[in-house]
Amino acid sequence: MIVDRRKGVAILVRESALPLLLLAAWDFVVVILFQVYHQEWMEQPTLPLSLIGSALVLYLNVRNTAAYNRWWEGRTLWGAITNNSRSFGRQASTLLRERPDLACAMAAYPHALRGALGRVDVSEDLRRLLTPAMYEAVMAKTNRPNAVLYQIGYGVTEEVTRRGIDGAVHGQIDRILSDLANAQGGLERIRNTPLPIQFSTVPRLLVHVFCLVLPLSMVQTLGWITPLGSSLVGLLFVGLDKVGSDLEEPFNSTPHGLPMRTMCRTIEIDLLQGAGVPAEGPLAPVKGVAP
Amino acid sequence: MIVDRRKGVAILVRESALPLLLLAAWDFVVVILFQVYHQEWMEQPTLPLSLIGSALVLYLNVRNTAAYNRWWEGRTLWGAITNNSRSFGRQASTLLRERPDLACAMAAYPHALRGALGRVDVSEDLRRLLTPAMYEAVMAKTNRPNAVLYQIGYGVTEEVTRRGIDGAVHGQIDRILSDLANAQGGLERIRNTPLPIQFSTVPRLLVHVFCLVLPLSMVQTLGWITPLGSSLVGLLFVGLDKVGSDLEEPFNSTPHGLPMRTMCRTIEIDLLQGAGVPAEGPLAPVKGVAP
Amino acid sequence: MIVDRRKGVAILVRESALPLLLLAAWDFVVVILFQVYHQEWMEQPTLPLSLIGSALVLYLNVRNTAAYNRWWEGRTLWGAITNNSRSFGRQASTLLRERPDLACAMAAYPHALRGALGRVDVSEDLRRLLTPAMYEAVMAKTNRPNAVLYQIGYGVTEEVTRRGIDGAVHGQIDRILSDLANAQGGLERIRNTPLPIQFSTVPRLLVHVFCLVLPLSMVQTLGWITPLGSSLVGLLFVGLDKVGSDLEEPFNSTPHGLPMRTMCRTIEIDLLQGAGVPAEGPLAPVKGVAP
Amino acid sequence: MIVDRRKGVAILVRESALPLLLLAAWDFVVVILFQVYHQEWMEQPTLPLSLIGSALVLYLNVRNTAAYNRWWEGRTLWGAITNNSRSFGRQASTLLRERPDLACAMAAYPHALRGALGRVDVSEDLRRLLTPAMYEAVMAKTNRPNAVLYQIGYGVTEEVTRRGIDGAVHGQIDRILSDLANAQGGLERIRNTPLPIQFSTVPRLLVHVFCLVLPLSMVQTLGWITPLGSSLVGLLFVGLDKVGSDLEEPFNSTPHGLPMRTMCRTIEIDLLQGAGVPAEGPLAPVKGVAP
Amino acid sequence: MIVDRRKGVAILVRESALPLLLLAAWDFVVVILFQVYHQEWMEQPTLPLSLIGSALVLYLNVRNTAAYNRWWEGRTLWGAITNNSRSFGRQASTLLRERPDLACAMAAYPHALRGALGRVDVSEDLRRLLTPAMYEAVMAKTNRPNAVLYQIGYGVTEEVTRRGIDGAVHGQIDRILSDLANAQGGLERIRNTPLPIQFSTVPRLLVHVFCLVLPLSMVQTLGWITPLGSSLVGLLFVGLDKVGSDLEEPFNSTPHGLPMRTMCRTIEIDLLQGAGVPAEGPLAPVKGVAP
Repeated sequence: MIVDRRKGVAILVRESALPLLLLAAWDFVVVILFQVYHQEWMEQPTLPLSLIGSALVLYLNVRNTAAYNRWWEGRTLWGAITNNSRSFGRQASTLLRERPDLACAMAAYPHALRGALGRVDVSEDLRRLLTPAMYEAVMAKTNRPNAVLYQIGYGVTEEVTRRGIDGAVHGQIDRILSDLANAQGGLERIRNTPLPIQFSTVPRLLVHVFCLVLPLSMVQTLGWITPLGSSLVGLLFVGLDKVGSDLEEPFNSTPHGLPMRTMCRTIEIDLLQGAGVPAEGPLAPVKGVAP
Repeated sequence: MIVDRRKGVAILVRESALPLLLLAAWDFVVVILFQVYHQEWMEQPTLPLSLIGSALVLYLNVRNTAAYNRWWEGRTLWGAITNNSRSFGRQASTLLRERPDLACAMAAYPHALRGALGRVDVSEDLRRLLTPAMYEAVMAKTNRPNAVLYQIGYGVTEEVTRRGIDGAVHGQIDRILSDLANAQGGLERIRNTPLPIQFSTVPRLLVHVFCLVLPLSMVQTLGWITPLGSSLVGLLFVGLDKVGSDLEEPFNSTPHGLPMRTMCRTIEIDLLQGAGVPAEGPLAPVKGVAP
Repeated sequence: MIVDRRKGVAILVRESALPLLLLAAWDFVVVILFQVYHQEWMEQPTLPLSLIGSALVLYLNVRNTAAYNRWWEGRTLWGAITNNSRSFGRQASTLLRERPDLACAMAAYPHALRGALGRVDVSEDLRRLLTPAMYEAVMAKTNRPNAVLYQIGYGVTEEVTRRGIDGAVHGQIDRILSDLANAQGGLERIRNTPLPIQFSTVPRLLVHVFCLVLPLSMVQTLGWITPLGSSLVGLLFVGLDKVGSDLEEPFNSTPHGLPMRTMCRTIEIDLLQGAGVPAEGPLAPVKGVAP
Repeated sequence: MIVDRRKGVAILVRESALPLLLLAAWDFVVVILFQVYHQEWMEQPTLPLSLIGSALVLYLNVRNTAAYNRWWEGRTLWGAITNNSRSFGRQASTLLRERPDLACAMAAYPHALRGALGRVDVSEDLRRLLTPAMYEAVMAKTNRPNAVLYQIGYGVTEEVTRRGIDGAVHGQIDRILSDLANAQGGLERIRNTPLPIQFSTVPRLLVHVFCLVLPLSMVQTLGWITPLGSSLVGLLFVGLDKVGSDLEEPFNSTPHGLPMRTMCRTIEIDLLQGAGVPAEGPLAPVKGVAP
Repeated sequence: MIVDRRKGVAILVRESALPLLLLAAWDFVVVILFQVYHQEWMEQPTLPLSLIGSALVLYLNVRNTAAYNRWWEGRTLWGAITNNSRSFGRQASTLLRERPDLACAMAAYPHALRGALGRVDVSEDLRRLLTPAMYEAVMAKTNRPNAVLYQIGYGVTEEVTRRGIDGAVHGQIDRILSDLANAQGGLERIRNTPLPIQFSTVPRLLVHVFCLVLPLSMVQTLGWITPLGSSLVGLLFVGLDKVGSDLEEPFNSTPHGLPMRTMCRTIEIDLLQGAGVPAEGPLAPVKGVAP
């Protein structure tokens, strides 16, 4: 996630440079064909362009709203992971004092989830935070975050049995594990259900078609400054398309994805400090982007 | 659900080919009548077209938002089915060790639900996962997913009585069954309540009328390239209409429906593995579409 | 609720015929005055019309979204009634075996609610499903659905006392009665709080004014085909206004209201079959409309 | 709240008359200056007006959606007050039979809330429904509805102690008091947090500026009928602004506010009848407005 | 938060003065170049401007809706803080009578939260409300509001143990602490996750580009009154951009942020009065702005 606005603009400019240059090149081809070689069949009246433009903008806005809602729902569910792991720390602080391995396992949970959502390798973090036995058990499963929750559940049940803890307290801790499972299910839902291609690929194709037609329609009125006008309009449409496609997959590893590594580290620090285990410091943004 | 974007575009092109070809044919008829036979009564000024076009796009966007919300609510409710069946597996893992038939029955539940929502035959899956007695009892009812929940409820109550399990634990399992019933009720609501025809059939009719008038209004300014301009605008409107009609029924069996078979298999694997029963592998997408 | 799309279109055409004919008649008056009697004071430039048209469409869309949300919220609350009455059936199946009158009373509850929301007479259904004593007690109250819930509550309490049922089980049943009361309160809220007239009557007035001005503004450019152009635009605006006004009152008895009788019958069948009481079959749609 | 649509339109016309007359007067000044005194510097091409108009309509719609959501959220929270006070009546009917003063106090609660939200004097209603001791205690506090809840809570606790009522039942009643406190907090939130002035005062200013410029831009094309065209457009914009400003404060005492007195009376009747205390009849709308 | 509309308009005018003056200056430069030095290469037809303008307005509205939702979600979460701290006061009133320090600590909690969200120094308020021991413990932690909750939790547990309070009562108080932690987590989420720069910096850049091009496109039709027309349009666009950027960060210290100090004081008064500790009066708005 971009946290430094100045550097963020530079990132956006870099990402948009290629399509805009291609568009500008096409504009010049059209202008030269029209102004130098007088290809007058290129003239087109303006009606369809204006109507298509308005329709496209409205469509892109509907798509962008859906993409932003996915992004924000993903963030809200990560917030639920944070809140519940913190509550696990507070409520179980009496229980966990003799079992710092459970607090460490809970600190490993968001890492396992981050690995599953972003399809990245997190075995280093899991090895660091889990006991060897837990690590073996978790790595053997396909759904590793779920396996971490199972291990925590087993540990909690052991402690409850060993120390004769009241059932109501056990119930409250179990409810937190269920809430974590629900938030995890929501995150997997966003991960496994991409925006329908009617809202992802189709708008992009329409924007490309629109940008191809754009200079043809402008050249007879704008003449030599067509590239300027066309680029200005193209910039807006390419930009509107980019807004949605940047946000629609909140767990990818571009600068626009959610800062999952930063959030995992935050949770880790809270839990390890609470259990009296030394913790590393928070992650700093890299080139204006929280990783 | 389309999971491969490249193949998905091919599917969309195939589905849209016929209406666009019909529109292009009509465009040619109009152009020839106007340019060759000089039917000048066809000339129409542009005002109503532009206004109608804008109004139609706005209307289609409102409809498409409603259709997408139905689709996403359906997916979210299937997510609740997944989460709760997974929680049933985890919380009841001590209870179910001697009763793998209950885990299998829970694995049969989403299949029964899929059969009811998509009006497809799932008796093969039910026979495979339910005991013969349960199978008979379930097939005799109209609302089969509800009947599966009843059977699971009876089995849980038996175990609770036989092993003297605490009432609070029983209550927690029962709550999961209630949550499953609520999610099922929500899915049935979407299934049984189509979008009002004011948001489904009417927009399509208006798009058709609009596409008929389109070349009439363009022909006097665009001349021989009318089919190009008209097809471009028509493509956009037919496309916008298609977005909504593809998503408004999330349980149909087109490539745009929710991947209910894939989700059922995922739930099945989780539950059977947890109960120590051998399970089949996950379903692969077919031609870019998750079934 | 219209369930047959083909017949639904016929219904919409029938309902819209009168205003469209009136509009066409007015169009002809204007054309004849202008073309035959050359009333040139009628000429108007196009600016205000196009701006007013766009503004009106946007306003209608905001209103239609609000109206659709009311309709869908009403449907969702009826879904909560269905889910909770079904849960009442399942959880209380042991309790109700000796008290089929309570299941019948629960089956009467949605009928009482339907009567209150749609202001129709449901005494026949109540007499059929309630015991004579309950029927007397319920008919004496103003808020009859609430009175049915009271009667069920009294019966449940009796059984709880008589058979020494555990307080937790009683609490669960009571929670269902509270959830039903909440859903009922939500339905009454929609019923008693119409859309503000700024969103119901005002848009209709503006559409009427707009349709009156429409031919005046078109006649000088369109000439004799004014009625065609004006009707086309008028159809769109009258249609957009109709979408919202059809959906804004989800409990009225037009073909666009929620199918409350069908839903009541579905609930009735589920509950009576569960209690071993013979039930009537489901209601079939009448002329494409679920009653 | 306006419940009679016919009279409601009359109210809207009356409220909008002054600004529309002022606008018409300004239109005439412009026309006369232009047509009679030929102040040609007034001529303005149409571009900015059309663009500003579209932008303004979109902005007003965003604002109106926010205002309507506030209004509807207020109504929903009042619905929660109604539901919970009704549940208090039902669940506590055994407890309250010997304490009708508590039912009366609950009937006084919405009046106290109405007084706090609308900043009106409700001491008459409170005196009528509360015991003298309660009345003294409540009037001494700043947050009177909260004080009424405290008094009810004390009374319930007394009864629980005196009659040895089970803790679970007490817990259920206390949960209702908490739900009432939450709904009250939501209503106070809407009351104390006006729409940001960017969504309240700014749109109105922009509409006024727009209406001032309107005739200047129309006069050269419309000539003598400028006042007609300008009033038509102005009516639409003044109307759109009015929609939002009428709804943005749901607790004010204009005809557009929520019918708090009517709702209070409804709650009062339900509770008093349930406790066997004679109650007044429901409030009738006054001139088409439910008070 | 601005509470006085009149003064609020003055604030907005002051904040917008600089960009509008710069725009007007640029307008004059363009007019003089065009009218006096006849730089005719500046002439541009109007098509792209009108299309860009509409697209930009739609985009700004999508962004403004997202920003307003952030602002309103922040306010709602602060409402949850208020409700739950009030419930803590009511439910724990028996428990806290001998422990006013806990009520004071709860009154310190929103101050600690305000300090964390707004990055301001609140040590004075914490010192005033916390006991010295608590103050030391809280100031030593990074997440101070969370540390205050821990301290309250320890105090409650002490009282529960010392006076042998029932577990259910303890559970209810603990649930309130969890709800406070959830609301706090939501507020931190809004604080730490800015709007994506696609919705914050990009719209502003596009508005600036648009305002630069504006007079170039208007000058050939508007001539000497270009600055007037351009300023009018520019005012609208700068204003629309400002609406969103004012609201997108609800916890900053501009006049548009949430009135966190006022809300903290309100909570403080309720809790201290309830615990019998003398409290300061409510905060008055300063120059029309609630701090």
